[in-house]
Amino acid sequence: MIKEIFEHRTIRKFSDERVSKEDIKAICSAASRASTCGNMQCYSLVVSQSEEMVSALSPLHFGQVERMNMPCVVTVCADVNRFSLWCKQRGAEPSYDNFLWFVNGTIDAVLAAQNLILEAESRGLGICVLGTTLYTAEAISKLLELPTGVIPITTIGVGHPAEQVELTDRLPLEAVVHYEKYGQYSPESIDELWSEKEAMPLTAQLLEENTQPTLAHVFTENRYKKSDNIGVSKSYFSLLKERGFFNN
Amino acid sequence: MIKEIFEHRTIRKFSDERVSKEDIKAICSAASRASTCGNMQCYSLVVSQSEEMVSALSPLHFGQVERMNMPCVVTVCADVNRFSLWCKQRGAEPSYDNFLWFVNGTIDAVLAAQNLILEAESRGLGICVLGTTLYTAEAISKLLELPTGVIPITTIGVGHPAEQVELTDRLPLEAVVHYEKYGQYSPESIDELWSEKEAMPLTAQLLEENTQPTLAHVFTENRYKKSDNIGVSKSYFSLLKERGFFNN
Repeated sequence: MIKEIFEHRTIRKFSDERVSKEDIKAICSAASRASTCGNMQCYSLVVSQSEEMVSALSPLHFGQVERMNMPCVVTVCADVNRFSLWCKQRGAEPSYDNFLWFVNGTIDAVLAAQNLILEAESRGLGICVLGTTLYTAEAISKLLELPTGVIPITTIGVGHPAEQVELTDRLPLEAVVHYEKYGQYSPESIDELWSEKEAMPLTAQLLEENTQPTLAHVFTENRYKKSDNIGVSKSYFSLLKERGFFNN
Repeated sequence: MIKEIFEHRTIRKFSDERVSKEDIKAICSAASRASTCGNMQCYSLVVSQSEEMVSALSPLHFGQVERMNMPCVVTVCADVNRFSLWCKQRGAEPSYDNFLWFVNGTIDAVLAAQNLILEAESRGLGICVLGTTLYTAEAISKLLELPTGVIPITTIGVGHPAEQVELTDRLPLEAVVHYEKYGQYSPESIDELWSEKEAMPLTAQLLEENTQPTLAHVFTENRYKKSDNIGVSKSYFSLLKERGFFNN
């Protein structure tokens, strides 16, 4: 049993301590050991630690980087640029500028990211995954000078934890696991699977803070609104095309 | 340092031993502890172990399941169906039927998958990631009876290893890690980063087997041909739209 997996929690407050070069090397090495499609390693990790870059990245993550005092921001990208350059240099014609390789690159990138996260935790570091990456992927790409064939997928903030937090709740295991085939959920099973989460004090608090009748409304009306979902879908897909992942 | 990360290798030959219920529960629990966007858990794991399902899945993975004697096939899916059903049942209007949530669901699914892989290895099991999932995603969806809002992303074969294999090579770490910003590769750096891989006996063997002048040609002409890349890009994207991940 891997302790780090079962003790994983998101850290949202970091100390002033820097992440050492040794730690950076170890967590990136861990990332590079993950399975990768055809051993092509279609991902890149951009590790930003300078005051200049961390400050410039913060507004692109809606201020979270500075608010959490994150010392190190790792932008995890799907990358077919490096492999394509190599192919061309060897006289072979690459054809990774299409949607299949956006998905393959994303899978490669995220398998690597989870290794990075766990190895960071095994070294006493804390992490926070920043989903804001997809919201501002174009501005992040400009700032990090990502070339065609490279697109940001997610971002991992890394640092020394300055808070202790409890494990987050999860749906019961039977919510996410299906045996043999997918079993569609009945109204009764939906009620049952969410009953524990809906009864939590945290839920009561969220309903009050957001003046919503149910937790589901907090998600649909406050956290992830339809207009944002549609807007980001359009802007991210348009970046994907512009960066050469849709010539199919 | 997490031993399983640095000792990870792909297993392509499994023994006849079944994967126990306890192991299945443990690896799925590990998966469910990964970070997930908004704690929404937008993924599902379909664990197929019956002779009927394993045999039916094998041709959809081009025979790999039977060739490797894989006893257990875990299809990892992005899933906004479950969360959307819950929202509707609470009178909230879900809007996760768009491209943003395809990407969010994919990230959730793959973070979970890497936990599943590592926990399997910590229990003495072996795994193989099947990239063929994207090639036949529509047929897999039909077989597994995936509803709208659910799409296969990758597949993890799990079982007891019946072979011992060496660690696979990787590009030098500096190939995949960039500091502060992305550093575009010079022709010299491309030569250097690939020099070790190109000098390996395995590469010489691949060139001979495929009668190709360089390793790059093995990728572009034999392994991942342009016509396949384009064909799968089209079919997978069309499935994504059909399954309700592109209403934006």
